[in-house]
Amino acid sequence: MQTIAIVSGGVDSITLAYHLKNQGHSLHLLSFDYGQRHKKELQFAAYHADQLGAYHDLVDLTCLYPIWLGSALTDETVSVPTGAYTPETLAVTVVPNRNAIMTAIAYALASTDSADAVALGVHSGDHAIYPDCRPEFLQAMETAMQLSTDSSIQLLAPFRHMSKTEIITLGNSLDVPFVHTWSCYQGGATHCGTCSTCVERRNSFVQAGVSDPTHYQGEETT
Amino acid sequence: MQTIAIVSGGVDSITLAYHLKNQGHSLHLLSFDYGQRHKKELQFAAYHADQLGAYHDLVDLTCLYPIWLGSALTDETVSVPTGAYTPETLAVTVVPNRNAIMTAIAYALASTDSADAVALGVHSGDHAIYPDCRPEFLQAMETAMQLSTDSSIQLLAPFRHMSKTEIITLGNSLDVPFVHTWSCYQGGATHCGTCSTCVERRNSFVQAGVSDPTHYQGEETT
Repeated sequence: MQTIAIVSGGVDSITLAYHLKNQGHSLHLLSFDYGQRHKKELQFAAYHADQLGAYHDLVDLTCLYPIWLGSALTDETVSVPTGAYTPETLAVTVVPNRNAIMTAIAYALASTDSADAVALGVHSGDHAIYPDCRPEFLQAMETAMQLSTDSSIQLLAPFRHMSKTEIITLGNSLDVPFVHTWSCYQGGATHCGTCSTCVERRNSFVQAGVSDPTHYQGEETT
Repeated sequence: MQTIAIVSGGVDSITLAYHLKNQGHSLHLLSFDYGQRHKKELQFAAYHADQLGAYHDLVDLTCLYPIWLGSALTDETVSVPTGAYTPETLAVTVVPNRNAIMTAIAYALASTDSADAVALGVHSGDHAIYPDCRPEFLQAMETAMQLSTDSSIQLLAPFRHMSKTEIITLGNSLDVPFVHTWSCYQGGATHCGTCSTCVERRNSFVQAGVSDPTHYQGEETT
């Protein structure tokens, strides 16, 4: 099965790539530069494409930057939230319709490449605030994209009912080298350790009972 | 009603803009450079935005060019069809998932701008070959995009059951200055008059009984 996997370079999508590889998929990874301040994550996507022997495409969507002003992920004037996420702080990290746009582009590529599926690493922890991570969106999007490309290309989201903790547990069982993944929305030299995404990453490793290989800023490496 | 209208600069989408304006919509026009060889059409989109007092955004999607190799609209190595369209010659003009990608981007903008609707100028003549112009796609896409943006933003396609001839009849009644629209896929100084899209344009004016103001190459202007 030939699958286009949308991969950012974070824990979820990198685990997705290893999971699909383990399931026997022939992988083509697809990443997007949408002006995210943590575009450092894209280096990790490229690294894992190399590790997995997968073709990797990077699509430049920085032209959409004006549409996405106001999101903490793309707008330098909006502060990245710190501490544990709340509904309010998660809300400023929304990038409207991002997953839909990426999925539509992935379907164009899948159609051109005669691939069988498009895969996304969305998980249940994102449902409350990110509408384009919810199962009902994913199902409707698959229908729309199959009609649009006159195909039966599937939209796979195997983690849609899993938590980040469960994803880390799965990734650990697949020997995913988590040290080569990136979460921090600050996009600095190391994970800041204080932004909400770093807090979520750290907590998820603790809850999974998996050793966290991340070097957080100001902490001794082990 | 605030509406984001996707406008190429051709007869259908320009008539759409005038029709929506006439219906009382507050318009924001959105155009795309996707590497089309007839990108000259975009000048006409800008012209009508100015005429209609509408804000106009141009999104650069030329980064998707590699995905769309093989289409006569974007690939200089593929000949633009000439003569009346046949199913075979129409097929080489397909740009996979183009309308879905454009619609997803328009929904991102509509979400950011708190607009009420996104509008497309697709018509019934395109249904046979272009799956992303069919009513069933449009309905599924509206559902997916509303879920994705957690909104009730409508997807309007008022010409979805109309022919190009009927669109020209409507445009004529609205005094659309058709001379400032562009159809020719060759993208030369004037309409070539021989490519299939020029043939379709010319025939549609004849069938509508509307004077064709187009200057076709090698013909005297009237």
